[in-house]
Amino acid sequence: MKKSIPLAVMMMLGGAASVYANDSVTTAIADAKQWAIQTGDYANTRYSTLDQINAGNVKDLRVAWTFSTGVLRGHEGSPLVIGDIMYVHTPFPNTVFALDLANEGKILWRYEPKQNPDVIAVMCCDTVYRGLAYADGKVFLHQADTTLVALDAKSGEVKWSVVNGDPTKGETNTATVLPVKDKLIVGISGGEFGVRGHVTAYNIADGALAWRAYSVGPDSEMLVDPETTTHLGKPIGADSSLNSWEGDQWKIGGGTTWGWYSYDPATNLIYYGTGNPSTWNPAQRPGDNRWTMTIMARDADTGMAKWFYQKTPFDEWDYDGVNENILTDQVIDGVSRKLLTNFDRNGLAYTLDRETGELLVAEKFDPTVNWTTGVDMDPASATYGRPAVVAKYSTAQNGEDVNTTGICPAALGTKDQQPAAYSPKTKLFYVPTNHVCMDYEPYRVTYTAGQPYVGATLAMYPAPDSHGGMGNFIAWDNIEGKIKWSLPEKFSVWSGALATAGDVVFYGTLEGHLKAVDATTGELLYRFKTPSGVIGNVMTYEHAGKQYIGILSGVGGWAGIGLAAGLTNPSDGLGAVGGYSALSDYTALGGQLTVFELPN
Amino acid sequence: MKKSIPLAVMMMLGGAASVYANDSVTTAIADAKQWAIQTGDYANTRYSTLDQINAGNVKDLRVAWTFSTGVLRGHEGSPLVIGDIMYVHTPFPNTVFALDLANEGKILWRYEPKQNPDVIAVMCCDTVYRGLAYADGKVFLHQADTTLVALDAKSGEVKWSVVNGDPTKGETNTATVLPVKDKLIVGISGGEFGVRGHVTAYNIADGALAWRAYSVGPDSEMLVDPETTTHLGKPIGADSSLNSWEGDQWKIGGGTTWGWYSYDPATNLIYYGTGNPSTWNPAQRPGDNRWTMTIMARDADTGMAKWFYQKTPFDEWDYDGVNENILTDQVIDGVSRKLLTNFDRNGLAYTLDRETGELLVAEKFDPTVNWTTGVDMDPASATYGRPAVVAKYSTAQNGEDVNTTGICPAALGTKDQQPAAYSPKTKLFYVPTNHVCMDYEPYRVTYTAGQPYVGATLAMYPAPDSHGGMGNFIAWDNIEGKIKWSLPEKFSVWSGALATAGDVVFYGTLEGHLKAVDATTGELLYRFKTPSGVIGNVMTYEHAGKQYIGILSGVGGWAGIGLAAGLTNPSDGLGAVGGYSALSDYTALGGQLTVFELPN
Repeated sequence: MKKSIPLAVMMMLGGAASVYANDSVTTAIADAKQWAIQTGDYANTRYSTLDQINAGNVKDLRVAWTFSTGVLRGHEGSPLVIGDIMYVHTPFPNTVFALDLANEGKILWRYEPKQNPDVIAVMCCDTVYRGLAYADGKVFLHQADTTLVALDAKSGEVKWSVVNGDPTKGETNTATVLPVKDKLIVGISGGEFGVRGHVTAYNIADGALAWRAYSVGPDSEMLVDPETTTHLGKPIGADSSLNSWEGDQWKIGGGTTWGWYSYDPATNLIYYGTGNPSTWNPAQRPGDNRWTMTIMARDADTGMAKWFYQKTPFDEWDYDGVNENILTDQVIDGVSRKLLTNFDRNGLAYTLDRETGELLVAEKFDPTVNWTTGVDMDPASATYGRPAVVAKYSTAQNGEDVNTTGICPAALGTKDQQPAAYSPKTKLFYVPTNHVCMDYEPYRVTYTAGQPYVGATLAMYPAPDSHGGMGNFIAWDNIEGKIKWSLPEKFSVWSGALATAGDVVFYGTLEGHLKAVDATTGELLYRFKTPSGVIGNVMTYEHAGKQYIGILSGVGGWAGIGLAAGLTNPSDGLGAVGGYSALSDYTALGGQLTVFELPN
Repeated sequence: MKKSIPLAVMMMLGGAASVYANDSVTTAIADAKQWAIQTGDYANTRYSTLDQINAGNVKDLRVAWTFSTGVLRGHEGSPLVIGDIMYVHTPFPNTVFALDLANEGKILWRYEPKQNPDVIAVMCCDTVYRGLAYADGKVFLHQADTTLVALDAKSGEVKWSVVNGDPTKGETNTATVLPVKDKLIVGISGGEFGVRGHVTAYNIADGALAWRAYSVGPDSEMLVDPETTTHLGKPIGADSSLNSWEGDQWKIGGGTTWGWYSYDPATNLIYYGTGNPSTWNPAQRPGDNRWTMTIMARDADTGMAKWFYQKTPFDEWDYDGVNENILTDQVIDGVSRKLLTNFDRNGLAYTLDRETGELLVAEKFDPTVNWTTGVDMDPASATYGRPAVVAKYSTAQNGEDVNTTGICPAALGTKDQQPAAYSPKTKLFYVPTNHVCMDYEPYRVTYTAGQPYVGATLAMYPAPDSHGGMGNFIAWDNIEGKIKWSLPEKFSVWSGALATAGDVVFYGTLEGHLKAVDATTGELLYRFKTPSGVIGNVMTYEHAGKQYIGILSGVGGWAGIGLAAGLTNPSDGLGAVGGYSALSDYTALGGQLTVFELPN
């Protein structure tokens, strides 16, 4: 029954601090038995080579064990597994549990941060937290109040902590951090409070600040080189951000960085997206609002930007650009390319060359997307790379205090934070989507630090030509730019997908199901009703020779904010309550881990 | 796939109010597919004739589905099942869910009472609620604030409501109600606030008060007849209660009625127990404090008392006498007797003739019980039926402000509310027990309405000669008065047992397990770690031809009050925190239903 201790665990238990923290992450990721960072791997594929559970036997899946976190509201993210220990996080107050997998999930330690509960009032869309990261014998917690804490993975002891933002100005955190080499890559939330976004690298060893790169503002604060930082192959030029804003609006201009981070060791680049410009009222911020809504590639050591691609210049719909960038090596026209695929809130799925930022594909991944006719793909065109906006659905053209109706997708996008997965076996992306449209009425707001700075009233509802549901789980071909199959769901699929070498793809539903489908055909192979709505991400690990599937339940997030926060007015929850009010017929608040296995 | 609709469901759906409400309960109980009242049956045996799940196949049990209640803290009691509907309750705020068993547990309706949260401050031992009852097409909710609500079982509509007590005086509710014929039998909590206990019958049809019987006080208010109401075969005589108190102490004298209720249709008697005298400081209430700590048999129609048996006269240890009375027909010395078996907090298990109140057996069901040498069983003796108190452990003899140490059991008893089960096949009782001792220091208190009126400081800890645990799950022979087998547990078994015709006995653990053991040998056949500590009671039902096992998780109750209320001082939680502090190594707060089945 005794198993050899994986290298990563020995390093952890040894307590010897390595300055090459990425070694520990790389080692842990390479061991498919573990789940060391939220994204599964640096490439954000959420693909596991484990194949004990496969398309043939997944129908026999059963619950192995369960764990209540003791916290209600939305549970995003997933547990981690390092060796014999599983690390489970909660939404605010962001409790961390270390569970002993060798002893029925006994609690080895728990860390309960003390946070000022006032931070809840400045979290736009539920008190979610997308989870911990592991590196170099430490577990990293980024609290709602932006306190970043390094915990000893074995004992739970606080090794260091540092504060990344100021909640009294609306700066909060919902995102995970990404450990890269000797640094932690850390974002910030608060786009609905006029927060000016930035990404910061802290030294893993001691928490010292290494570099910070703002999303908008002066070149020096953005860590760009006007000559070498490119946009669609051309230098961005001097003052590229300042030139795209009126006056000082950029100082409260958004572009927050609360999404997922990718890293490519070969190029030493990190990839992430920036959020919406503030406010949601476009009349208050004429211009392209650079570099909000942008995919950014930066050097991991220095933070210097290699390339940008702005997906939605001059946002008029709150189509935050923070979604994950999935890194794959695929053959196009007989040539192997290093690709980056991104499913944006705006309903377009992009395929880019991740070395150069060249735009290869930009296609709608929901046919109901109507705010744009598509992206100009002609490199010779003046509008190259820009989406063509349909006047009818332009909240800027319709003006302030006008209710623009029938915009698809809604502000929460065709896809929000819920991460997609990619299988190198099928070469398909598995994408949890929303199928929701909206009415959007912008209005003028005045900025007050720490107060909501939204500037639009929304109503969200199922897409009018709907199959009857508010979501789809789709398989996407990122070369052809086409949906291969689409599974209708009653509500948005707000849970992250997992693909495995067993040719199974897993995802959760807001009603509370874990579902397993055939990676090739999408055929439903297994479903189980977990205690509460699922907005967590499916993960897998192996322990004592057996593969397990883990998922957090706990309805909430933006889609579930009505249920999570007890809201009843349809326009509450930034417009989400209306469309999702029927959720209360299916589930109640929760906060539980469910772990699945095959029978012995 | 279509199944015939059981009679009880047709009555429910028909909406025709029957004045013979017990018919609906009797019909529902007789149908083993259903679980109509918390106790399973009127006799409180918690025995099911369902046998699909049996000692041979229970090892294959798996989780069928789960449901989060959206409420944390201690979940006592169990769901009900009537036809295709499962009714689930929560602790405060006492939400009620009706779940559609034919549609994956979809929420048909939910009832969310509005209660003043101040009531939590006057609940001694967590915000628990031991569940709903069904009769005559209605589901009965008895809220923490003592509001009794009749809900239409199909629609959740409020048919009537009535208030049974006054929380500003410390009167609260944790107990279920028992529907008997055209009445609901309803108790009251608040023994730690000087509440004078009573049982009240309300008309099922309209909530009108039918009768109320106090536990202590004048004969007229106690509904006793000095000549025909008996104690150990003799008339109790006039003013039997008033004679046993000094002055007006009886007016704040306790004897609350928050336990379980039994009913024998043959004798038309209801059976229940009365709680501790107030205060816990015996020096403040010399006398036998009748009729606290008493098993009571009353006519269901009129409330008139047939017989009493006082188990612990002049309580000095808070050995509340409210535990369930299990009604069985068994052969003793070749003669079939109508028996009542009671496992008291004081560590003694009693077997009585339930028609006459004759005491047949009184034996310790934990060998560490040390406050008494046993009960005088000689009918000719002046102390007939009384326990002999060991001076060393007499908190009254040691006096106020003296810490009496090493008393076994602790105040929460060898068994508290956690109900036992009985199998007519094995003729054994399956008893969840505590294995905990205490130090007890009484002190003088002044009564203020609505303020704690405890009068003793406690420390509770594992029994000194312990097997290492704080509980046992035992099989008891109520004729021999002997333990047949005993299974050690790390913590108190605070969950109610279920016995089935499949020769399996189920119970839960504070760490969170559901366990299944062989009814004859006690051999462990199956265990599963549910999301949170289990203090709920195991129930079973059949739906669409398949047997299911249901259990609520959610650590709390008196034993789990430290975890549930976030207490850390060892003497907090009326002394429970100290002994149970290690619970936090095993589980966190929860509130979930887990339903088990055999594989198809």
